[in-house]
Amino acid sequence: MPDAGESAARRLRLVGDFLQEQGLDAFCALGTSDIAWATAFEDVFDDERAHALLITQDGALLHTDSRYSHAARQAADAAGWLVAVSDERVSHARAVIGAACDRLGGRSLALGFEDDVLLKEWRALVAAAEGAPCGVSLQETSGALIGLRAVKDAGEIARLRAAQAVTDAAFAHIVRFMKPGMTEREVQIELEDYMMRHGARGLAFSSIVATGANGASPHAIPGDTRLEAGQCVVMDFGARAYGYCSDMTRTVFIGEPSARLAEAYEVLRRANETVEAALMPGMTGREAHEMAEEVLASGGFGGLMGHGLGHGVGIDIHEQPTLSPRNDRPLPAGCVVTVEPGIYVPGEFGMRLEDCGVLTDEGYKIFGTSPHEMVII
Amino acid sequence: MPDAGESAARRLRLVGDFLQEQGLDAFCALGTSDIAWATAFEDVFDDERAHALLITQDGALLHTDSRYSHAARQAADAAGWLVAVSDERVSHARAVIGAACDRLGGRSLALGFEDDVLLKEWRALVAAAEGAPCGVSLQETSGALIGLRAVKDAGEIARLRAAQAVTDAAFAHIVRFMKPGMTEREVQIELEDYMMRHGARGLAFSSIVATGANGASPHAIPGDTRLEAGQCVVMDFGARAYGYCSDMTRTVFIGEPSARLAEAYEVLRRANETVEAALMPGMTGREAHEMAEEVLASGGFGGLMGHGLGHGVGIDIHEQPTLSPRNDRPLPAGCVVTVEPGIYVPGEFGMRLEDCGVLTDEGYKIFGTSPHEMVII
Repeated sequence: MPDAGESAARRLRLVGDFLQEQGLDAFCALGTSDIAWATAFEDVFDDERAHALLITQDGALLHTDSRYSHAARQAADAAGWLVAVSDERVSHARAVIGAACDRLGGRSLALGFEDDVLLKEWRALVAAAEGAPCGVSLQETSGALIGLRAVKDAGEIARLRAAQAVTDAAFAHIVRFMKPGMTEREVQIELEDYMMRHGARGLAFSSIVATGANGASPHAIPGDTRLEAGQCVVMDFGARAYGYCSDMTRTVFIGEPSARLAEAYEVLRRANETVEAALMPGMTGREAHEMAEEVLASGGFGGLMGHGLGHGVGIDIHEQPTLSPRNDRPLPAGCVVTVEPGIYVPGEFGMRLEDCGVLTDEGYKIFGTSPHEMVII
Repeated sequence: MPDAGESAARRLRLVGDFLQEQGLDAFCALGTSDIAWATAFEDVFDDERAHALLITQDGALLHTDSRYSHAARQAADAAGWLVAVSDERVSHARAVIGAACDRLGGRSLALGFEDDVLLKEWRALVAAAEGAPCGVSLQETSGALIGLRAVKDAGEIARLRAAQAVTDAAFAHIVRFMKPGMTEREVQIELEDYMMRHGARGLAFSSIVATGANGASPHAIPGDTRLEAGQCVVMDFGARAYGYCSDMTRTVFIGEPSARLAEAYEVLRRANETVEAALMPGMTGREAHEMAEEVLASGGFGGLMGHGLGHGVGIDIHEQPTLSPRNDRPLPAGCVVTVEPGIYVPGEFGMRLEDCGVLTDEGYKIFGTSPHEMVII
């Protein structure tokens, strides 16, 4: 696995190439996940949006506050000082623009930034540019860093696989643990605790455990509903490990399912496996989504999915690319995506079957090993 | 405790009063916590930014997607239909501006929105305003909803107290659980699992457990460092329950502390208790912060805090008002804030002592019951 310094060097080079293509001198990243990706720092950042990263062709400057600067300096040191760290008490906008002007030595500065900054952060960048020691032209980009993050490197794939192994183990455990009469919450708590005690450093997202009609809300929040015979239970969960997320959904059955539930599950599984077998670089996200919709419709469960078929996974649980009707771009080799068709019948039941894997020139390689066969509890 | 319908009615009235003051016809909220506050919906929203709320004098319209609309309609129904729900497949910007134009019946529309929207969301609002069926004037506000959220109502205080009770119980448990030789991670996992099994619906934030020199990073991430005699361990943790956060830090000692650690703890405790005894509505956040800094300095540990003394707590872990040098505004009665002085000596140790409570006309009422006395393990 490449060390953190190599990873940062490679990623900063990718940003450097992007700067060159776009005619930019520097880039200002404010998203914490973008910054974690570009620096390859581990165990420095939490969820707070409390940092700015200036990236130029010569390296990067992380501007943070005193709560993080000690850990950041240790990480920068370990990574070979490609990334300088400052916790000077000025705003991110002033720090980044001031440092960029310094590095350019008086030339005028073309500074890129993403359109997913907050409006007030943008106002601060505009104000800092006006008061800057050099001429500054701010250039808005859309999806630049998240776009670069879409194709994962070997170190990232290893981390993503390790995170997925935690969910696999948790699924094997929870199936033995679940009993009729338990509440959704009891199952959620056990599932999450198991992940935390078996390699997770945190959760990728708050787990979904939804039984019976609750399953018809794809983002149901686990509650006091008890598992009952004749129902199916949707469990959607993920671990965060080594800075990366995993994501997995299985639907299990409490007692022998009705013919209708069993049929729905067969159709759902066929939709999942048809796409997973067909997925190749060059297909568009829309094509993958429509392929699943067609299998669901031909099985008699069309128009009941209501969400996109899948999404990228990485440092964040929702990354690029998406498998959805809105993505007409070809999927690149090296991207990591979920495949998660669902069938939701309001007032009746919901089910979803989700894997996460990497798209290669040999097809879609699923990270997990949990089977698709119907599980009856 | 007021029911969800009453809470929503009261909060929408507060926003209505704000609209009138500002000469606005309507407000568009995109922040999920703002929306959860204004609707008082429980168990509908998760962390995703996937909703828009239009608020007018006549009520509100929640625009969401099909993943959430079933749960949202149930909550709206229970709350008496003050809030209509739509999951029409158009962008939030178009949905909200279209609905606002409809409600105004052709008059021109003054629509407020916060400057913490994403820049790309703002661009979408501008584009939708240009293509709208009525004349639209977009009016940027700063901190309006988070400002209204600063003063908590009785239902919120009850929820915040219930969330804090979970952390109190978890602290009592973890002190019995901790032993020299355990890793920070082991302590973190037990602490979080205990909270989840005793009333938490989730974590308010990823817990901090930092021993020895690791404690000198206020946002340290728990790792494989083992608890050793002679060290102190900072534990900063919070539960999420009934939609609200709790927040608490205690520093405990592994074996008898050195004279220097014991002295630092005495000074830290004095800083905490001096402020907690003095805190009254009308004091500014800066005054509270400076009072703590003075006690720390007079005890020989000045200039080692490096963060603000406290922050508001509510639906989010960091709300208004802040106790910090940057807040020159008087603290209002009814606000809920933490008081958390810290002493961080790089390479040596860190400690912090944090309570969370409500500011009343009779002073600061701490929610928790965990004592400040030195705990030796």
